[in-house]
Parts: sequence; structure tokens; C-alpha cells
Amino acid sequence: MEAIDLRHHLNTLSVSRAPSPLKDIMSYMAIDGMVSLAGGLPHPSLFPFVDLEANVYSSNVDLHSITSRELIHLTIRKDDRNDGQVLDLSTSLQYSSCTGLPWLLNYTRELTRTVFRPAYKNFEVLLNEGSTAAWNKVVNLLCEMGDFIFVEKQTYPSAQALWIPMGCHGVPIEMDAEGMRSDALENALCTWDSDHPGVKRSHVLYTVPTGHNPTGCTMSARRKQEIYALCVKYDIIIVEDDPYYFLQFDEYNIKAEKQNSHAFAPSYDESTFLSSLEHTFLSFDTEGRVIRLDTFSKTLAPGNRVGWFTCNPVFSERLLRATEVVSQAPSGWSQAILSELLRSWGISGYLKWLSGLKREYAVRRNWICDIIGETFDVKTGTSDEGLVVYGKGTKVRLFSFVPPRAGMFLWCKLYLEENKEFLALKAQAGDVDPEAAFEKKLWRELAHEKVLLTPGSYYTPWQGKEKSSIASSGREHGVIFFRMAFSMTTANDMTLGIQRMARVLCRSWGLA
Amino acid sequence: MEAIDLRHHLNTLSVSRAPSPLKDIMSYMAIDGMVSLAGGLPHPSLFPFVDLEANVYSSNVDLHSITSRELIHLTIRKDDRNDGQVLDLSTSLQYSSCTGLPWLLNYTRELTRTVFRPAYKNFEVLLNEGSTAAWNKVVNLLCEMGDFIFVEKQTYPSAQALWIPMGCHGVPIEMDAEGMRSDALENALCTWDSDHPGVKRSHVLYTVPTGHNPTGCTMSARRKQEIYALCVKYDIIIVEDDPYYFLQFDEYNIKAEKQNSHAFAPSYDESTFLSSLEHTFLSFDTEGRVIRLDTFSKTLAPGNRVGWFTCNPVFSERLLRATEVVSQAPSGWSQAILSELLRSWGISGYLKWLSGLKREYAVRRNWICDIIGETFDVKTGTSDEGLVVYGKGTKVRLFSFVPPRAGMFLWCKLYLEENKEFLALKAQAGDVDPEAAFEKKLWRELAHEKVLLTPGSYYTPWQGKEKSSIASSGREHGVIFFRMAFSMTTANDMTLGIQRMARVLCRSWGLA
Repeated sequence: MEAIDLRHHLNTLSVSRAPSPLKDIMSYMAIDGMVSLAGGLPHPSLFPFVDLEANVYSSNVDLHSITSRELIHLTIRKDDRNDGQVLDLSTSLQYSSCTGLPWLLNYTRELTRTVFRPAYKNFEVLLNEGSTAAWNKVVNLLCEMGDFIFVEKQTYPSAQALWIPMGCHGVPIEMDAEGMRSDALENALCTWDSDHPGVKRSHVLYTVPTGHNPTGCTMSARRKQEIYALCVKYDIIIVEDDPYYFLQFDEYNIKAEKQNSHAFAPSYDESTFLSSLEHTFLSFDTEGRVIRLDTFSKTLAPGNRVGWFTCNPVFSERLLRATEVVSQAPSGWSQAILSELLRSWGISGYLKWLSGLKREYAVRRNWICDIIGETFDVKTGTSDEGLVVYGKGTKVRLFSFVPPRAGMFLWCKLYLEENKEFLALKAQAGDVDPEAAFEKKLWRELAHEKVLLTPGSYYTPWQGKEKSSIASSGREHGVIFFRMAFSMTTANDMTLGIQRMARVLCRSWGLA
Repeated sequence: MEAIDLRHHLNTLSVSRAPSPLKDIMSYMAIDGMVSLAGGLPHPSLFPFVDLEANVYSSNVDLHSITSRELIHLTIRKDDRNDGQVLDLSTSLQYSSCTGLPWLLNYTRELTRTVFRPAYKNFEVLLNEGSTAAWNKVVNLLCEMGDFIFVEKQTYPSAQALWIPMGCHGVPIEMDAEGMRSDALENALCTWDSDHPGVKRSHVLYTVPTGHNPTGCTMSARRKQEIYALCVKYDIIIVEDDPYYFLQFDEYNIKAEKQNSHAFAPSYDESTFLSSLEHTFLSFDTEGRVIRLDTFSKTLAPGNRVGWFTCNPVFSERLLRATEVVSQAPSGWSQAILSELLRSWGISGYLKWLSGLKREYAVRRNWICDIIGETFDVKTGTSDEGLVVYGKGTKVRLFSFVPPRAGMFLWCKLYLEENKEFLALKAQAGDVDPEAAFEKKLWRELAHEKVLLTPGSYYTPWQGKEKSSIASSGREHGVIFFRMAFSMTTANDMTLGIQRMARVLCRSWGLA
């Protein structure tokens, strides 16, 4: 199956880009015996870099007892007379193809084929400088000024900070424990013309399907199929921004023994690991209407600034044209080091590394859930509530959260109906937003107690000034949200942080 | 002296960018004893990189007899408990400030202060991912769709490939041997309203002042002062794209002994080197209306993808807002390696390296000029012609070029008045462009003879479809141009290339 023609989704800017005239010259450069006085390249003998060596973990590493036997030594040299067969610094530090270095590009293609399994044949991959840069290129590929974009009910602030100044609007779609709700999307599509008279229907859907930022939610395969079918029916491009894809965990079990022991590392089996991963949107994409964004930021290190697009050939060609004038290729150092690391690991080694990595983040997920369980009274609620958290020894419901099955985030929904301070604010609020005022106040109290969370309002999709208050935006009344990241803290600091949070909540709810 | 308020130059997009709400949180993170559950960062203990070592040249290196004693060994380790004082992989591979790593940012600031000498006090520097990325950010800072941009009469194709799809137009300004002509710029400004009825006057001037691409021309200090004064009078922002700044050579002396000997390396003196460099636009910039683009691409290696802006604080703050959503920081590998290299060299070491580097490119400049002198008959022409080149043993003028005093390029102006093929094309041309047709034909003949040059038409500023032919654009009739890069070729290959070129020209001009 091949991608269908979707070029009508390209925006004016993107359609107007011309291929570089230098392309014509490039094809001639490969001719044997050609003397090129065409390329304005610095001479690699004049790069002051001789060689590079790095010690990296083997893909078999036990992250809790690293010995030198588990290190791999990488070496990259400069060879001015390199024939291009071996990666060297003359090549990787020179101007190079905006697609990315051939070996690394091919590796990402194979990884994509093996793991994400596009449902059509002629998909293309193209390197980029990480998903921030990638999303900028995608918005400038598809969106006109003032466009509307479907997003999850809570969305990643930096993604929308890009399109807000373009006069674009988010169209928030309700979520539940399985991610974006397909019935809500269908409803938004059916009622578009009456809800948005005179406005062109949104043709782009942005989603973080795995370990969603901020809600931690992971979209089920069934949900992806339903949403994909709607996107076919209504001709929508899906942008699958999936940095946390490989950090997928088992269910959190509140009744289990304390789960912070590393003693039990299950034996690794590649096909078991692969089949434990959710289906991607790409795996249902028979038409080429998904642009998938992958990155090494969460799995190897953010400082690499290397990720890749997977999409249909028409889009990838236009993304390449943009890349030529917007950024050129990712850093040669990053590409060289990643190439050598991944060459030594292979696809199988990288998958093994990922299965170890996800265990580490699962341990951190367990820590934070366990600590909340110890600090508060916790009961199992509905599937959308997840765990409901009460003041210790009280029946006062403070917040709830769904223990995440992927990613780095815990999303707390705070219930304000029993908080007198909030009720007082609400009574005197008039036309202002009592939830927003209370969130701000509580955040300051937490910071004063020396624990930092991220206010939920940061993740509210921008629908324009007239829809920015809680009432006008249609958000739920009497609740606020905080995001907690469990990726970066030690168990001790987590305990300290959650205890401080408990003190602030008890005081605010009058339970102290 | 401080920058004046130039915020009225910002475009709608740029004015509309909001600071990230996460800024508020950042300031709290530094508080002693704070537990942060706010940042969604991967844990550096889970980066698979242990350490990095690199051998690099010392700044004293003699590039013609490199011994191991002239290598410096750089080491960067991962230290999870780093207090931020030493650069390590935990910091440089983590998400980091979009301004760039503090040490490297400070280094570029000091280099800018020492060498480029801004004429106002409160200038700011900001790292970027090289000048392609920088120019994208500048155009999206200042230009609206459909804007006009002042450019040199020949301009860098990738720079305009960015703005052509935005519906922008170039306004080409005549050049002479001293660079863009100030009288031509003044004339374009005075007659703007009659020449462009109803069109907003261009408020952005893009220039490559040193070793201009493609003409190889270097703008004199006097010319910069005149142009700066006009830009003050007419309120224009100057974008000084100066990648070849440090590759400034002595005059080429056609009568000198063959200059390809490396035996004579003059003793190095820093202040002599610094005073040999042309004044920058920045050094005349009392108001903060210059945005200067610097890069390590030509001086250390393109693959670094690191450069920096120097500009007024209002522009740098808006560029930083854009950077947060368009790219984030440059590669952590690039920043770490550059930091360690430049730390070991210091400012003085880098300047010494640059003085050695420019000598290498000067030798290459001499090679190509010498070889042309041997292959053709060459006479000194007017200052705008430079050297005039005749078929060997004939009086047939083939081309002329001004031996470049900087950069990597030789710009050949071919005179077609004695070429019968061209005259025949012209006679039959009707409304088509005989110069364009002849350039294409000649380029193919050169490529067939296995020598590649870059066709001059690639550098024609885009003035819209209606002004794309030679007649409508006001370009000179009866001449075409080719660009030759002398940076990347050996002396032997240059000889081979120029001899092949001579064969093709002689055949085409009927001299064979």
C-alpha cells in the first residue's frame, strides 16, 4: 500500500519553496575524475579536530552496578582521504546532506520499520534537530496564520507557544483514561460549522499519545484506530509527537510490596519487549496521513538535539526543502557520536537499552505512587479518577490521579469543593476566575514550603482571548490540576516533596 | 552609549511571542533546599555517555608539519553530582538554556567585544545553530510576508531561498570593488516611492561584507560608514552576515614570485593581526541597528552548527523567545567540545589559530590566481575589472576577476561580445534571455569537460517573476558570471580544472 496524495494540506509557504539550484550541480559532483570548483566548503585539513573517543555504556549494562567491563570505547578519526565508507570527522564535520548522515538515517528508517511499523510502503524518514525543531517545521508545513489545530484537552505549552503568535487556535478534545476521546473528536467535527461559523475546519491534529504531557495518559490502540478512521473521513493530518514511546510501564499495583527494589530484573526477550509496546498511529496509517516525530532526547540525552520525522514522501520532500533554509543538518558531532553508539549497539542493542531504561523510569513511577500512598489515604476510584487521595485519617477528598503507564508525569486533579478558602474566593470572585486565583495562591504556598509543581493552567489550550477564562473555555469548575515529574528526583527528595505538599494541602483544606 | 529603541522593526509574529510561563518556576528552582517536581527532564544517570576525549590542534600548530606535541587532549566527563562549576556531560547533554551554555556564551561575548568592537554598550550575544538557522530567525523577527529586502547586486542563494516563498522581494544594490555602493543605496532610498508606488520601504539590509558570496568582494570601512549613516537616516536594520570575516588576506600581487611556498610564515603578533582586520558594521553601530551573524563553520568546522547573534537587547530577547519554540539550544556535544577547545586556547589562542588559518586560504587564493595567470594572458584592468584575462596568445578578452582579499570565492565576469555562439543566440532570442541560455550551455560544456563552476545566475536577487529576465531586472547585457571556490581543491586539481576551463572557453570563443 502506498501513501495517497495529500499535498492539498501543504500551506502556501511550503508549496512555494523551490529546490535549491545547487541540486543540479550535486549530481555532477559524483562523476569520476570531476574537478569541483563549485562548493564553497572549508577544507577538512583545516578543522582543528584530530580524533574523538568516547566511553559509552554497553547495551547490556546494569545501571545499578556499572563496571568498566560494561563500557564500549568509540573512536572517530579525521581522515582527509576518506572514501566515505567509514564515518570520520572530515565527513561528519563538513557541510552534509540535510537529510542526515546516510548511516544514521538508515538506522532510524530500520528502527521505524521494526518498531513503529508504518502501514504503507513508501514512507520516508528525515533527521531533525529534536522535536521542538521538528514541530516548528511541521506547523510551517501545514498551517496558515489563524488556523485551528485539534489538541488534547491539556496540551504541551511549548508546542502551542509556537502557533499562538501565528494567530492560530487550539481546539481542545476531551480525554479519558485511554487518551483523546474519539466521540468528542467526532462531535467537534460534526458540529464544526455551527460551532465555528465561517472558520475553515481544522485539518491538523496534534497529539502526544504515549505518557502524554502533562496528563501521563497513554492512548489505547483501539482509540488510535477510531481517531485514525475519523481523520480519514474528515481528511485530517495527525502529528504523532511521541518522545515517551519507549517509556511504557506495567500497571501500577497499589497493593504490591514496595516496588523500589531493583533486585528483580526480568530476563530480556526482544519480541516480548516489542509486543509490550502500544501500537503507534503510524501502524494504522494506510494513507500516509500521520507525521510521526521521534527523538533521542528522552532515551539517550536531550543535548543530542537529534530526532526524526516519519511521513509520506510529498511531506518529507517539502520538509527537506524547509530544512535546507531553516537549519541545515543536525550537529555533526551529535550525528557522529550517535552513529557510532548505535552502530556498536545495533537495533537489538538499542531495544535492550530501552527495556532497561523503561524499568528505571517505572521504578521512579512506583516510588512517587508509593510515597503518595504512605503520606495520604488512598482509595481506588473509577477508571477516569484512578486513585483518589484523602487527607490522612480524614474523609476529605483532596485529589486524584491515574498512575501513569508511560512517560515522566503524574497529573493531579485537586477537588476544591471542601476547601473553604476556595469557596470564599468563589463567592467574591464576580467575573474573575476563582480556580485560576486559587491555583496561583496554592502554588505559591507550595513553593514557600520548598516544593515545586507545575500549575495545571500552563497546559490549557489557547482558544483566543475571549475563551481564556474557566467559564468561557468550558473547563470543569471546582477543580484545578498540578503536574508532578517523577523523572528527575531521588526517592528521598520525592518523599520530602510529597510530605511538604501534604502539609500545604492539609493547612489549605483546614485539616491541620 | 546605549542602543536606541528599535522595537518598531519587529514583525507581528515576533511581537506576539509570550515568554514561557515556565520562567516563573525557573527562578524558584535556584532556592536552596527546593525539591523540584516541576521539570520534565530525563535523569542524567540514564544517559549512556560516560566521557569524551578529543585530540585537537594546539593554537600554535604548524598545519604543514603536525606532530603529536602540537596536540591538546580534551576530556569531558559525566558527573551526576556536578555543582555546575565544571562543564560535564550531565549538564551539557541535559536540556539547557536556549541562550547557550554560560561559558561559551561568555566567550563569544568577549570575542565580540575584543574583535568586532560594538560602538554601543548594552549589546547582547545569543548562540544559534549556525548562520542558516540565524538568518531564519532574523527574517522571522523583522520581515512580514511580501516585504522588500536590500541585498547586494549578487546575493547568497540560500539566504533568499528562505524569503522568496514568503512573497518577499530583493532590492539589488550595485557593487564595486569596495562592496555595496552607498550612492546606489541612497538613490534607491530617495526614489523608493516613485520606483515602488504603494510599497512599504524596505527596512532590512542584508549584506555579506567580507569575502562576499559570490563576488569575493570585501566592503571597505569607509563604505560601511556611509551605508550605516544612510541606515540611520532612513531607519534601516543592517544584517551583517560575516562568516568569512577572519579569512582576510593581503592584496594579491600578480608580479610576485609564485606564492605557494609555505616557507615564509611571518612572526605572529596579536595586535598586528587584529589591526589587519577590517572594521565591522558593529564597530560603527552607535544605535544598535546592526544584527551581526558570526559562526564557527568556516573557522573550526561547519558540522559544529554553532554561531552567535550580536544585537541590541530588545532584538536578542525576541530572538530568544523564538529560539525557545523554534530550536532550543544548539547541540550539547557541539557546545561542550567547542567550550573545551576554546577554553584551552583562550581568546588569544583562537586569534592565533585564525591568523594561521587565513594564511592557508591566502595560499589557496594565490594558487588559483597564479594558475589563471599561467593558463591565460592576464593584464591589470580598472579597479572594478581587477585582472583582465585573454585567450593565451590572443587579444580576445574572455573574462575578468578582482583577486579576492577575503573568503573562498573568485568571481569571473565573462565578456560575450566576441563569442559568435552567443551572438547567434542573441540574434535568434526574441524575448528570451540569451545570456541565461548561453550560461547554461557553457556550464554544460564545462561539466562535460569535468570541471564544475557555479553559474552566476544562481546569485541573481529575486525581484519577482516580472523582473526575472535580464532585460526586466536591469542586469548588464553581454556578460555572464561564474563563481569558483578555491577553498576545497588541491593545487593540482586547480591546475587541472583551470586548464579544462581554458579548453572549453577557447573552443567556445573559436580560439582553439
